[in-house]
Amino acid sequence: MNNRKKTVYITRKEHFNAAHRLFNPKWTVEENEAFFGKCANKNYHGHNFDLFVTVKGIAYEDSGMVMDLKKLKLVIKENVIDKLDHMNINEDVVFMKDKLASIENIVVAIWEILEPFIEHGKLHCIKLVETDRNYVEYYGE
Amino acid sequence: MNNRKKTVYITRKEHFNAAHRLFNPKWTVEENEAFFGKCANKNYHGHNFDLFVTVKGIAYEDSGMVMDLKKLKLVIKENVIDKLDHMNINEDVVFMKDKLASIENIVVAIWEILEPFIEHGKLHCIKLVETDRNYVEYYGE
Amino acid sequence: MNNRKKTVYITRKEHFNAAHRLFNPKWTVEENEAFFGKCANKNYHGHNFDLFVTVKGIAYEDSGMVMDLKKLKLVIKENVIDKLDHMNINEDVVFMKDKLASIENIVVAIWEILEPFIEHGKLHCIKLVETDRNYVEYYGE
Amino acid sequence: MNNRKKTVYITRKEHFNAAHRLFNPKWTVEENEAFFGKCANKNYHGHNFDLFVTVKGIAYEDSGMVMDLKKLKLVIKENVIDKLDHMNINEDVVFMKDKLASIENIVVAIWEILEPFIEHGKLHCIKLVETDRNYVEYYGE
Amino acid sequence: MNNRKKTVYITRKEHFNAAHRLFNPKWTVEENEAFFGKCANKNYHGHNFDLFVTVKGIAYEDSGMVMDLKKLKLVIKENVIDKLDHMNINEDVVFMKDKLASIENIVVAIWEILEPFIEHGKLHCIKLVETDRNYVEYYGE
Amino acid sequence: MNNRKKTVYITRKEHFNAAHRLFNPKWTVEENEAFFGKCANKNYHGHNFDLFVTVKGIAYEDSGMVMDLKKLKLVIKENVIDKLDHMNINEDVVFMKDKLASIENIVVAIWEILEPFIEHGKLHCIKLVETDRNYVEYYGE
Repeated sequence: MNNRKKTVYITRKEHFNAAHRLFNPKWTVEENEAFFGKCANKNYHGHNFDLFVTVKGIAYEDSGMVMDLKKLKLVIKENVIDKLDHMNINEDVVFMKDKLASIENIVVAIWEILEPFIEHGKLHCIKLVETDRNYVEYYGE
Repeated sequence: MNNRKKTVYITRKEHFNAAHRLFNPKWTVEENEAFFGKCANKNYHGHNFDLFVTVKGIAYEDSGMVMDLKKLKLVIKENVIDKLDHMNINEDVVFMKDKLASIENIVVAIWEILEPFIEHGKLHCIKLVETDRNYVEYYGE
Repeated sequence: MNNRKKTVYITRKEHFNAAHRLFNPKWTVEENEAFFGKCANKNYHGHNFDLFVTVKGIAYEDSGMVMDLKKLKLVIKENVIDKLDHMNINEDVVFMKDKLASIENIVVAIWEILEPFIEHGKLHCIKLVETDRNYVEYYGE
Repeated sequence: MNNRKKTVYITRKEHFNAAHRLFNPKWTVEENEAFFGKCANKNYHGHNFDLFVTVKGIAYEDSGMVMDLKKLKLVIKENVIDKLDHMNINEDVVFMKDKLASIENIVVAIWEILEPFIEHGKLHCIKLVETDRNYVEYYGE
Repeated sequence: MNNRKKTVYITRKEHFNAAHRLFNPKWTVEENEAFFGKCANKNYHGHNFDLFVTVKGIAYEDSGMVMDLKKLKLVIKENVIDKLDHMNINEDVVFMKDKLASIENIVVAIWEILEPFIEHGKLHCIKLVETDRNYVEYYGE
Repeated sequence: MNNRKKTVYITRKEHFNAAHRLFNPKWTVEENEAFFGKCANKNYHGHNFDLFVTVKGIAYEDSGMVMDLKKLKLVIKENVIDKLDHMNINEDVVFMKDKLASIENIVVAIWEILEPFIEHGKLHCIKLVETDRNYVEYYGE
C-alpha cells in the first residue's frame, strides 16, 4: 500500500477547567451586563473546556502516522493546557492579556501558539467546546 | 489582536423530541413497508433529536463574538424548536406539510427557515442527529 | 481465586425508538393538557429510549460470568425491544394496554416481563432513560 | 395494573456553570496550595456542573407519575440553579457562605435546600458531577 | 419542495472491538519500543472503535433519502465490521496484512473497501475513533 | 455547618486500553468457542475500559473532602492502571494470572488491590465499563 499521497486528518482531544467572564473594559458595567448578561458576572463563572486539535498530512510509511501523537500531546500540554488549566482566563493567562475572553478569541490565540510547533503535516483546525451546547472552530483563515 | 480577518465557526446545539414516520402517500401501504420497513409504522415512532446550527463569520472587536448566541438561541427556539418539540412531524408541523418526514428533508427545511435570520455572519451548517447512529448535515448547497 | 461468594452486578444496555403520549382517558382533553402539558399532544411525540437491565449474582468458576450476556441480550430483544422499537407505546404495545404510558409504568411492566427469564442470578434493576435529562429506575420493590 | 405498592426512582438532570476555588481561610496561602494544589488558585477556576436529583415514591394511578417533573424542574431552578449558574461559588452564593466550596459540601447543601420541597415521594439522592472524572453523591444520611 | 439540487451528507455509525499493536517489522524490537512506546506491547492491547461513514448526495423525491441506510449498514457490516469485530488487526484481518496497524492506515483501507459499494451518492468521509481522545478522518484525497 | 455525620460518596473515573479473550483452559477449544463465541478468538480482541472507584465517608471539616482525590488517583494509577493499560490481560497482568479474564473477575481483583489503600473513608464500589453496552459493579460483598 502506498498511502504517501493520501491526506488524513488526525485529532487529539485535551481538556482544561477554567474561570472567565465576558467583559469589555471600554464599556460601562451596565453596558457589559446589558450585552453579555450573566456571562459578565464580576466574580467570574467557569467551564470544563474540551480542546480538539486537528493536524492534516500524509502518513509516513515507516510509522503509519502523520505525526507522533505523543509529541503533539506534549506540545499542547506545555504551551496551552498548562497555561489555562485551573486558571482564570481574564486574570492569569498571558496570551489572553488585553483580549476579550470569548471562545472565538481563545481559539484564534491557541491556533497562533500551536501552528509553529507542527513540523510534520499542517495544523488544520482548533475546536473549543465550552458547554454541551456551545462550541467554536477555527481553520486558520 | 486583530481578529477582523479571521473566520470562526460558532455552533449552538438545541434539542427536540418528536414523533414521525417515513411514508410516501403515492405508494401503497405494502410498498411503503417494503421500502421503509419498521420506519413506516402507521402509528408512528419517535426520537430525541439534537439540532446543531453553525454560523461562520468574523468576531467583532467590541464583543469578541460573531453573533450574540442568546439571540441565535431565541431565533432557533421560536422558529424551529417550538414548532417541532413534542410534535408529530407528519401531522403537526406546517413547514413539513406535503414533504416526506425524512431527516434529509427536515434539515433542508430548517436551513431555509433560519437563513434569513442570520444577520451577522453567514449560516454554515445545519446538522440533525436522529439517533446515536444516524445524523445528517446540510451546507446550503 | 474463589469468587463464588462474591456478588457482582452485571448490566446490559439496549435501545428502542418509540412514540407515546401521556393521556388519562378518565380525564377530559382539557384536564389532560392542563396536567401533562405538551406531553399530551394528541398526535404523539417520541424518544430514543435507553434501557439498562441489571442482574446480580455470583460468577460461575467455569465461565467467570453471572449469566451469559448473549442470552440476556436475546431475552431482552425478543420480549421487550421487539415489542417497543419503532412502535407507538399507546397504540401498538400489548403489555402497556390500558396503562398510562409514563416511564414509571413502563419500567415496572418491563421488570414483570423479564424477571421470569432470569435463571442464574436475580434481576436487580430496570433503568429507562427517556431523555438526556429524565430517567427512572425500579428495583422490584 | 396496581403500581401503588411499587417504588420507582425518578431522576431529573439540571446544569450550571460556575467558578470556585478550594481554600480554607484558617490555613495560610502556602498550606492551602500545598494541600489543594492548583484547585486553590487565587483567581478561581470553573466547571460545567451536572446536577442529578432523584426522588423515590409510588406512581399515582391517575398520572402514572411519582411527582410532576415540571414542578421538580421549577423547584430546582428557582432554589438551586438560579443561585449557582454563572456565579462564583465562593463569593456569590449565599447558601455556601462560610463553607469550603468542595463538591462534598455543595451536595449536602443542595439536599438541605431541596428536601422541604418534595411533597410527593421522598428525596433519595443528590449527585453532582464536577468533571468527566469526578462526581459525588449524597443520600441524606 | 425540490430538494433534487441540494446536497446532504448522511452519516452512519458502526462499532467494533479489536486488538492491535503498532509494530514495524523492518525495525528492531528496541526501535519499535523507542518509537511506539507501550503501543508496541508484544501481546497487543485493544480498543472499542467507533466507525463513522458519511455519504453525500441529493435526496430522492420518492424516498426523501440519499441512499437506503439499511443497505449502507449491511454493506459496512459485511465488508468491514464482520472482518474487524473481536479480531486482532495485526493477525486476523486480511485487508490489513503487511500494513502497519495504525488508525491512519485502517481508515484508508476502509475507504477503499467501501467506495465501490456506494451506488447512490458518493462516499465523503471515513472517520475512526480509537479512544475518547484520538480519532482520524479520511476524505479520499 | 457540621457535615461530620453526613456520609458522601465520591467517585473517581480512570481509563485503560487492553486486550483480552475469554478462555477456560480446562475446556477444549471447541467448548470455549461454543460457549464464549467470538470473545474466545485466539488472537485476542480489546476494549477501552472505564474504571469508576467510589469511596464513602464523612467530609473533613478542614478540607471539605472525604479523601484527597489526587492521592486516590495516584493509588489507582500505580496499582491498577499501570498494570492494565496497553496490556494483554490474559498474558501480561500478574493479578489476573490463572483467572478467567471476565469483567466480573477483573472487578473483584481490582477491589482486593485497592481496598487496603483506602485510609480515610471506605471503599464502596468498583465499576468497570467494557463497552457502551456492558458494565459490571462490585460492592465487596
